[in-house]
Amino acid sequence: MNVTVKGRTGHYRTVAFDTAANAVLLIEQRLLPHEFKIVATKNYRETAIAITDMVVRGAGAIGATAAYGLAQGLRAFKGGDLKKFAVHTHTVYQTLADARPTAVDPVNAMNDVLRAMAPGATVAEQQALALAAAEEFANGDVAHCEAIGRHGAKLIRNGMRVLTHCNAGWLAFVDIGTATAPMYAAQQAGKKFQVFCDETRPRSQGATLTAWELAQQGIDHRIIADNAAGHFMQRGDIDLVIVGSDRVLGRTGEVANKIGTLTKAVLAWHHRIPFYVAIPESTIDWNMKDGFDIPIEERSESEVLGAWGVTSKGKREYIRVANPTSGARNPGFDVTPAELITGIITPHGIFKPTDLWKNRKKLGAKE
Amino acid sequence: MNVTVKGRTGHYRTVAFDTAANAVLLIEQRLLPHEFKIVATKNYRETAIAITDMVVRGAGAIGATAAYGLAQGLRAFKGGDLKKFAVHTHTVYQTLADARPTAVDPVNAMNDVLRAMAPGATVAEQQALALAAAEEFANGDVAHCEAIGRHGAKLIRNGMRVLTHCNAGWLAFVDIGTATAPMYAAQQAGKKFQVFCDETRPRSQGATLTAWELAQQGIDHRIIADNAAGHFMQRGDIDLVIVGSDRVLGRTGEVANKIGTLTKAVLAWHHRIPFYVAIPESTIDWNMKDGFDIPIEERSESEVLGAWGVTSKGKREYIRVANPTSGARNPGFDVTPAELITGIITPHGIFKPTDLWKNRKKLGAKE
Repeated sequence: MNVTVKGRTGHYRTVAFDTAANAVLLIEQRLLPHEFKIVATKNYRETAIAITDMVVRGAGAIGATAAYGLAQGLRAFKGGDLKKFAVHTHTVYQTLADARPTAVDPVNAMNDVLRAMAPGATVAEQQALALAAAEEFANGDVAHCEAIGRHGAKLIRNGMRVLTHCNAGWLAFVDIGTATAPMYAAQQAGKKFQVFCDETRPRSQGATLTAWELAQQGIDHRIIADNAAGHFMQRGDIDLVIVGSDRVLGRTGEVANKIGTLTKAVLAWHHRIPFYVAIPESTIDWNMKDGFDIPIEERSESEVLGAWGVTSKGKREYIRVANPTSGARNPGFDVTPAELITGIITPHGIFKPTDLWKNRKKLGAKE
Repeated sequence: MNVTVKGRTGHYRTVAFDTAANAVLLIEQRLLPHEFKIVATKNYRETAIAITDMVVRGAGAIGATAAYGLAQGLRAFKGGDLKKFAVHTHTVYQTLADARPTAVDPVNAMNDVLRAMAPGATVAEQQALALAAAEEFANGDVAHCEAIGRHGAKLIRNGMRVLTHCNAGWLAFVDIGTATAPMYAAQQAGKKFQVFCDETRPRSQGATLTAWELAQQGIDHRIIADNAAGHFMQRGDIDLVIVGSDRVLGRTGEVANKIGTLTKAVLAWHHRIPFYVAIPESTIDWNMKDGFDIPIEERSESEVLGAWGVTSKGKREYIRVANPTSGARNPGFDVTPAELITGIITPHGIFKPTDLWKNRKKLGAKE
């Protein structure tokens, strides 16, 4: 998407590749929204560290980063010995897979690259095929998000107020994003609307990343405390909710997403407001049979007990907000049942959550 | 309630009066939870400033502060001229009434004082009656909260997990509080339970004031992000919700309270969890006919866009969390409809919200 820095506008992807320098280019997301910076990782080990340290985050974005990181690592191999190259490939793959061990996207993306390079007869051929496959993965991610935008944009009409939670925007993918894709497509179609960004405590991705994205694209938006959505819904000030997801169960239509998503879904249901979830194919889990089996990560108490931001002197700082002798509970995700969800926006159209299973072939389920 | 500072435990009221020094004693709430300090206002003007600057906040607490401030101002009058004393009385009253112009409690409390001192035949008699009336107002506030505790404690059974929102604790009253009164009474009765404190963004009164209060009284509690209550309710980890209120409509049973209260009520209703509101008589508005007529204050954007806390070096600091080029919406209160409320806990018992009107005599409604 477009980013304007000091009056100059450029088009950026969250993840890209510099072929000449053999470097992965990443938007340094830990500095956002206070500073925009592109970092270039010099080798695959630096790329793995960038994933671990959350320079880059979000399902699609870390998938593409791992795919590019694999190609980067393989391209650095000198010589033509295929056996040695295979050993090297294994090392690179494992380093990148270990960078964020609970995430499935990097592994899936790298497996695509390995499959694509297998037919190469020489090291040089395999290196070239690997890079082409990584580019294809990244372009595929963008194409999926574009398709989500085409389908979802129909839901946004002129004058609407749209609520979103957390960040399922282009920063979480290679470009465009999922929950934001219908907004960007509606904007391109000339529609006028306003977005309410839930702050999304405790990590405030709505107030930081989503608000930054929307501001960069010139979409009218307001940040609200997570407590305020109910009030605005009651007063008729929210017409539509669109969120992303970390995992959608293809068998039941249950949606795991950032903590607080369930709350917005219950509020939307109570106030008769449509609630949509936007996802690429890769987010659908076709195996799990019960949403209560999804592990809910309990994160650090410090996230709830304080906040990160910038002081009046421009210094990035963590402050303790809460009573110093109190503890916290901090579940990172929640599970929204299918009956609260109006529809799932996918690259192949919009489906009722309970209709995913019978459309599983269309949605790319492997047998 | 009890406060332990540097290993020494003392009993404190939020608001008290030092007769010898003619000073109002206030817990400096803006320093909590990071520092506990009692300030003594030297004259009624300082007392008014303390109300304006939110050294003290909460309906009962500012009512008692104004009553004491009025007595303080009258006691500072020298001489015996009743006419000059009446002019002085008017000045003191108006200064304190203007300290927080939208609040009704200071005015109601001071009117009690004026009524009680009227029979005094001399300046000295009126001064004495005014102080006695201020003491009576403060003691009455405590007695109401004790009665709320007696009725509400029955709702808390051993092993329960109780959710509360914002701070309707003893810091908002002279002592004991409203939403916290059932908890303190249940603790005294030897019951074991756990409290979840909603952080209560944007001003975080749950994470700061309520958590501090509960920690001081040794009540097991955990702070949660406002986003997390839905998840815990879904998993069966919350058994009861008790909140306070800024205004309850006696005719309709609607409840105005801190932003986010409506959200918790909708979540509790959806998950079949009892939802109670604890209030003294003075919170009931017997005149207003429609909760949508309650003015909803839109507060400063900066509250949503950042946070106050303490840095690792112990310095109190505001940090900007949100994207610097984004704005916010910040409604301070919301209105919960009667049908979501299980009961209203009052000093006279627990009532269905729609039964307040027919019990209005018992609840102190004036004809």
